[in-house]
Amino acid sequence: MPETPANTDSASALDVLLPWDGLEDRHGPWPSNVRVHVWDGTTPEDELPPHVLQSTGLWVMPYAVPGVERLLPRMPALRAVQSLSAGVEKLLPVLPEGAALHNGRGLHDASTAEHALGLILAAQRDLPRWAANQREDLWEPHFTRSLADCRVAVIGYGSIGAALERRLLACEAQVVRVARRARPEEDVHAVSDLLELLPDVDVAVLVLPENPSTEGLLGEAELAALPDGALVVNVGRGRTLDTRALLPELRAGRLRAALDVTDPEPLPAGHPLWQCPGALITPHVAGGSAAFRPRAERLIVEQVRRYAAGEPLLNAFPRP
Amino acid sequence: MPETPANTDSASALDVLLPWDGLEDRHGPWPSNVRVHVWDGTTPEDELPPHVLQSTGLWVMPYAVPGVERLLPRMPALRAVQSLSAGVEKLLPVLPEGAALHNGRGLHDASTAEHALGLILAAQRDLPRWAANQREDLWEPHFTRSLADCRVAVIGYGSIGAALERRLLACEAQVVRVARRARPEEDVHAVSDLLELLPDVDVAVLVLPENPSTEGLLGEAELAALPDGALVVNVGRGRTLDTRALLPELRAGRLRAALDVTDPEPLPAGHPLWQCPGALITPHVAGGSAAFRPRAERLIVEQVRRYAAGEPLLNAFPRP
Ligand SMILES: NC(=O)c1ccc[n+]([C@@H]2O[C@H](COP(=O)([O-])OP(=O)(O)OC[C@H]3O[C@@H](n4cnc5c(N)ncnc54)[C@H](OP(=O)(O)O)[C@@H]3O)[C@@H](O)[C@H]2O)c1
Ligand SMILES: NC(=O)c1ccc[n+]([C@@H]2O[C@H](COP(=O)([O-])OP(=O)(O)OC[C@H]3O[C@@H](n4cnc5c(N)ncnc54)[C@H](OP(=O)(O)O)[C@@H]3O)[C@@H](O)[C@H]2O)c1
Repeated sequence: MPETPANTDSASALDVLLPWDGLEDRHGPWPSNVRVHVWDGTTPEDELPPHVLQSTGLWVMPYAVPGVERLLPRMPALRAVQSLSAGVEKLLPVLPEGAALHNGRGLHDASTAEHALGLILAAQRDLPRWAANQREDLWEPHFTRSLADCRVAVIGYGSIGAALERRLLACEAQVVRVARRARPEEDVHAVSDLLELLPDVDVAVLVLPENPSTEGLLGEAELAALPDGALVVNVGRGRTLDTRALLPELRAGRLRAALDVTDPEPLPAGHPLWQCPGALITPHVAGGSAAFRPRAERLIVEQVRRYAAGEPLLNAFPRP
Repeated sequence: MPETPANTDSASALDVLLPWDGLEDRHGPWPSNVRVHVWDGTTPEDELPPHVLQSTGLWVMPYAVPGVERLLPRMPALRAVQSLSAGVEKLLPVLPEGAALHNGRGLHDASTAEHALGLILAAQRDLPRWAANQREDLWEPHFTRSLADCRVAVIGYGSIGAALERRLLACEAQVVRVARRARPEEDVHAVSDLLELLPDVDVAVLVLPENPSTEGLLGEAELAALPDGALVVNVGRGRTLDTRALLPELRAGRLRAALDVTDPEPLPAGHPLWQCPGALITPHVAGGSAAFRPRAERLIVEQVRRYAAGEPLLNAFPRP
């Protein structure tokens, strides 16, 4: 458990508990009034000196380690909790009074948007077909679709959706922005207009969170409204797309799909989606790439700087 | 063989021979002083009225139809020949005196750059692995590389290379530009510095034409200079990459490759590249997508407008 050997007056120093070591090698020294402790969530918390739990004011929780929130009730000095996940609702009930919650909004944008782009390009440029031909030593070129010139509906035009849009525009595609409510000044359409928008899109990308308003949002009527040959992509949450309504459209060869999230998830062996023609499936890996760590480190460094300077932290997640 | 029923004075009208019909439906009427004829290259040229061959001043040659240049000696009024290919060297010897040559520079940029991006994303995000797992109903997520934050050398920073760069930058990658000679004001490096540049790149993309100076340009020494795990991409010409030097690097698992062009090409069944670990192969399809036709039509419409107005045409290809 390394501590910064800073020339800090231990009484007045601000204690900060981080999940990773060595950030100062890449980002420069910590502010002189903070004392940094490290716990990656995988060792027993008994190895943390009791005074660290007692004194930590800012805790950046270990990422994707289930159960680490069990420490929260034992951290009386907490003023801010930084999660590196986008979804932090489940922390609210266990959050100590007096501690603010901050989420990982934005940290997964690059990774998730780039995976969505990869899925779209793979589907448009027939990469699964070339991979199948490669297995059989088969050189058999044919003309393909493109992404350029396509109209792509980004359904859930939030943080990831905007990152995806930047990539799509660079590929000379057009973007149709859809969110809960229309924002005409930003050219964002309301989801209530979806049925009118879908007949004119070549690709429909779902980047929606899971909640009662999004469950089955792309269902039988919406899928039927898409033109022949359209591509359905999901990198949000599996249940926002109605799998039962999608299957016959894929089997008929009328629509195509590229799905990083599914319903059910994980997709069990034997589920008809696996071997459905025109379906490309990845196992919820859009957010899980090397793009995450540097962005998470930059957020941590900035939050520690703000904490040390008494400035408001970024990414506040309001208590309801 | 439709002709525009324009109110053109047939004596003074400029005759133009195009490969496709119906462009005016999408792009508006032709200039009133041109008379448009159409020949797609697949019907016998005897079906062209003799006066068309006699009078055609601007000929847009049918795309990717071998042998259509046989008409050139029979077109005495030719002032401009527009090919829709980028490589037009082979037309120079048969070009009538008095006719200028124009090539398809730029028409393949969107298609080729987007395929290169698709290959890079497929390799970085393990799409071949997910496709293999899908065949076995296997949901087995793992962490992957990303494109974001990668340093990508674009070796052959020309028309396609610049189009690829725009896509890479939108994906939060960094680009190292390489061309024949350094252009410091544009941050372009000379190919003579390649060995010093390669140790710092994660992805090396070849977008080179084939000529004596590019043959085997990425050879044993250059491949050895790449760091472990680097990705080699080729969307230019197969012979610019030394296949014999690449194979042991792939077999050792030290480098990865995504190749749209190969040496030999087509890659014959039984060639070791096909089943080499870490190799992703597509059969020279980067340029052949739906992105081509709209860009070709826009160029044709603009060239006809310029021809009618007596303005210089775009994409002049100099006689040596
Ligand atoms: N596949 C993966 O690995 C992966 C990785 C990271 C995240 N995700 C998923 O991606 C989701 C989106 O992330 P984000 O960071 O972009 O979230 P965000 O910034 O909060 O954006 C969410 C967007 O969805 C819209 N939305 C919410 N309910 C809607 C409804 N009923 N109808 C239409 N639009 C609705 C919101 O509209 P308003 O703008 O009108 O509020 C907003 O534009 C996350 O919730 C998560 O589930 C998946
Ligand atoms: N896979 C496909 O389907 C497909 C489709 C279209 C095109 N292509 C291939 O892609 C190639 C590039 O097309 P483009 O339109 O981008 O051509 P371009 O605009 O002429 O660019 C070619 C680039 O290569 C550079 N170059 C030439 N010789 C070089 C050498 N010895 N060392 C280093 N750089 C060298 C040039 O450098 P300078 O700037 O210094 O002159 C230029 O930057 C074409 O020639 C074609 O073979 C393939």
